[in-house]
Amino acid sequence: MATYKRLPKHIGIIPDGNRRWAQENGFKKQEGYKFGIEPGLELYHLCLELGIEEMTFYGFTVDNTKRPAEQTKAFQKACVDAVNKLKDRDADLLVVGNTNSPLFPKELLPYTKRTKFGKGLMKINFLVNYGWNWDLNYGIKKSDFDSKQDFTKNIASSDISRMDLIIRWGGRRRLSGFLPIQSIYSDFYVAEEMWPDYNLNQVHAALQWYQDQDITLGG
Amino acid sequence: MATYKRLPKHIGIIPDGNRRWAQENGFKKQEGYKFGIEPGLELYHLCLELGIEEMTFYGFTVDNTKRPAEQTKAFQKACVDAVNKLKDRDADLLVVGNTNSPLFPKELLPYTKRTKFGKGLMKINFLVNYGWNWDLNYGIKKSDFDSKQDFTKNIASSDISRMDLIIRWGGRRRLSGFLPIQSIYSDFYVAEEMWPDYNLNQVHAALQWYQDQDITLGG
Repeated sequence: MATYKRLPKHIGIIPDGNRRWAQENGFKKQEGYKFGIEPGLELYHLCLELGIEEMTFYGFTVDNTKRPAEQTKAFQKACVDAVNKLKDRDADLLVVGNTNSPLFPKELLPYTKRTKFGKGLMKINFLVNYGWNWDLNYGIKKSDFDSKQDFTKNIASSDISRMDLIIRWGGRRRLSGFLPIQSIYSDFYVAEEMWPDYNLNQVHAALQWYQDQDITLGG
Repeated sequence: MATYKRLPKHIGIIPDGNRRWAQENGFKKQEGYKFGIEPGLELYHLCLELGIEEMTFYGFTVDNTKRPAEQTKAFQKACVDAVNKLKDRDADLLVVGNTNSPLFPKELLPYTKRTKFGKGLMKINFLVNYGWNWDLNYGIKKSDFDSKQDFTKNIASSDISRMDLIIRWGGRRRLSGFLPIQSIYSDFYVAEEMWPDYNLNQVHAALQWYQDQDITLGG
């Protein structure tokens, strides 16, 4: 296996391109999502083997649910199916998203508290019905909010650490609301391939690039 | 002049690489900043000619001021010098940064209210002694803050609109705290050249790339 002089502790994943992949391969747009589950599991196994401590997957957002209903249903189901498959692995799962909405899949409610599967070897965070604005305003709207504090300590995603590296599949070079606070200093790598066309060489290319970035945090 | 089928309304600029450029060209690190002023003016003229409505330049951050004093002095001076040169142009300038700190150059205090130079043809925002955390917490810490509201309407940079395109010089692929709210959906283009090596071809390459991006805002 490849070795690296420096690895990210926490990798964020934007698994984009499912719909474009579906259309290019003769499927309906909404059929693309189910082809995104296996890549996620393979990526989890690769990162576990490499010693990555934490991963965050961008499932779907509140904005995404404005899409046609058959697409929304399909990505909701893909998220539930992904979690059901993860149960057989050694993950420590936290689902983060707006549960005060019928669009949040109720099957995932138990995992909005961090839950160990197997040996719970890697922290996996999964954003489901997530909204950046919901996330940031979350703590502020609570009755016990203290405006003297730094509000970023009380965001909905406060149990998710700073991301060192973000890998986005599908060629687009934007964050699209992916954890605004935790992405502040993240190095951002874009793979041109659509997410269902995932393979491990794409990850090794990202890690190779990452190990040569200097980390200054602005200093 | 090149024409584009679609132009960004608002471009954010991260003019990185001054110190690396200085070292590669036989100067001390802190001497790099003064070579970054002329590129900024050239870029302003190019964008004005193209019809860009708003630009935001990432001057320096609170984190940057942890660097050696001679560097801090040099980038503070470069920011003041840049504004003095902009006075002869047709810009509508707003400086945004933490003025409650001796590190904010006092010469720039008048411009923390938007100020028209000449015909004031283009909105120019200039982040000086800026901090993402300061920006986001700004409105919340005010005595009249209402936690029922969306706090993102009351951030320190609330007069700066969403950025459509961010161009970062100097090869690094991260946002480094550059307006976390306004960069949520920004397309992010990286020029490998150091900022003092600016030329207009780099901008045209960015705009050519940008016009082929689809804008979905998550929908």
